[in-house]
Amino acid sequence: MAHGPPDVPTDPGTATPDVEHGPADRDLLGLELHGGGRSSFVLTSPLTRFDGKLYGGTAIAVAIAAAEAATGRRARWCTTQFTASADIGDVIACDAEVLAHGRRASQVRVTATLGGRTVFSALAATADPKPGGLTGTYRPMPQVTSFEDSEPYRVPAPAEVLPDEPSGFEQLIEIRTSRPLEKGPPGRMVFWTRARGAMATPAVLGFLADMVPVSIARAAGRAGGGMSLDNTLRIGPPAATDWVLAELEPHLATGGIGHGAAYLWSAEGGLLAVGSQTSSMLLFD
Amino acid sequence: MAHGPPDVPTDPGTATPDVEHGPADRDLLGLELHGGGRSSFVLTSPLTRFDGKLYGGTAIAVAIAAAEAATGRRARWCTTQFTASADIGDVIACDAEVLAHGRRASQVRVTATLGGRTVFSALAATADPKPGGLTGTYRPMPQVTSFEDSEPYRVPAPAEVLPDEPSGFEQLIEIRTSRPLEKGPPGRMVFWTRARGAMATPAVLGFLADMVPVSIARAAGRAGGGMSLDNTLRIGPPAATDWVLAELEPHLATGGIGHGAAYLWSAEGGLLAVGSQTSSMLLFD
Repeated sequence: MAHGPPDVPTDPGTATPDVEHGPADRDLLGLELHGGGRSSFVLTSPLTRFDGKLYGGTAIAVAIAAAEAATGRRARWCTTQFTASADIGDVIACDAEVLAHGRRASQVRVTATLGGRTVFSALAATADPKPGGLTGTYRPMPQVTSFEDSEPYRVPAPAEVLPDEPSGFEQLIEIRTSRPLEKGPPGRMVFWTRARGAMATPAVLGFLADMVPVSIARAAGRAGGGMSLDNTLRIGPPAATDWVLAELEPHLATGGIGHGAAYLWSAEGGLLAVGSQTSSMLLFD
Repeated sequence: MAHGPPDVPTDPGTATPDVEHGPADRDLLGLELHGGGRSSFVLTSPLTRFDGKLYGGTAIAVAIAAAEAATGRRARWCTTQFTASADIGDVIACDAEVLAHGRRASQVRVTATLGGRTVFSALAATADPKPGGLTGTYRPMPQVTSFEDSEPYRVPAPAEVLPDEPSGFEQLIEIRTSRPLEKGPPGRMVFWTRARGAMATPAVLGFLADMVPVSIARAAGRAGGGMSLDNTLRIGPPAATDWVLAELEPHLATGGIGHGAAYLWSAEGGLLAVGSQTSSMLLFD
């Protein structure tokens, strides 16, 4: 089912039931709904990288929030592709098209533009749970120190870029490096992280998962990060939690392109989401 | 960079250099290029599921081949979203739009349609390797019996659907179930698989990786599969191999929606690609 034509505005409050966490996510991201699947947000400093450009985690969070608002269903998967950058103050327009709307699941495409140029594109599925449908977690949670016993951490960045004070997305999230309480697989990095004042909704999990390239560089014995080509998130059941354990798992790099995953856990041991990412690697040492 | 307008056909043989494996992939899939990023294929029986509908692995293979043909670069990542089905004999039109074309990497969107309806959409990146760019594998290969010492395997399907003779995609691929030679993590399933008469190109790896839901059902102690909402593939370095070890890793299911990954290895131990998938689970027992 396609969404309504753009010249026939609909009231999203009546046309589509809102997801429970929709208002909180849109408040965090500054995302305004305009009806008919359309929305927009102003790129503010907490939604950027250290260099003041759009942060990848922001894009996937916005895509998830837009897909949920367009369908009234909880996001289950989202992939966001980055094609152009944007600067602080830019107003980015998002169009969520519902390409299929089944009894339980919807398939959505979100296109974000700035002056006619595509900044990011996303594909996403939202779905209502099937009563009695298969439910379970098939992976063990890493055993590490609690967030109370873990130390503040800053993501690696070149000295000339890393500001003294929290800057860009660091204003929105908190990260603590945990210590392992067991021998993990080689290359694994584990952090505690949360968005300040926000629960771990699908959109917030997307924002938090954008850290995989750090682990790829470290697995290679280097300090570095990456320019994401995409961010992907697969989402599990809801949980009333803010702190999330991010287990980063580097997979491989070839000719400067790196791949890896991020498993996001609640403090209680629930697997909340699985992120994955391909990026053009940047090494700082 | 946007591709040329559809009314100005370009000769893909001169406009864009072909990737080395392009002709073999297009021959396997029956994909014909029409210039300007456009292509088409006829849905034949080996490209379908047991019920004669489009197989998910076919869609991601076609999307990868179309993105590579449009850019002349090797695919590095592709996510394909399924929105409608198609039947044997249908002619599916594909449009590959190059949304960004950088010095080394390109971002592409592929839209496949049938009579104006979107059958599948894909986002993909292709890239030339960066000389001296980060290269390495950060994960161990499972230790299992060789493909010579492994037994033929058929994917689970309901008795009323599973044909006596190889049918649908089974005509194109061979699967052997391997025996573990070490204790692996819970839920892991490992197969040998190859496309008959084809090397493990990015498109072929996409076709082979579409098996994750089987492992999610089995981790829950059930026989089953799933209807994919998406197929995602992250691609490593080229390898001259046909047999691929597919290590399936179930992650979680909630309310009937399942998530998991597939690591694809060469017999020599190289990590060729990492697939992941979200699906609506179907249980057969």
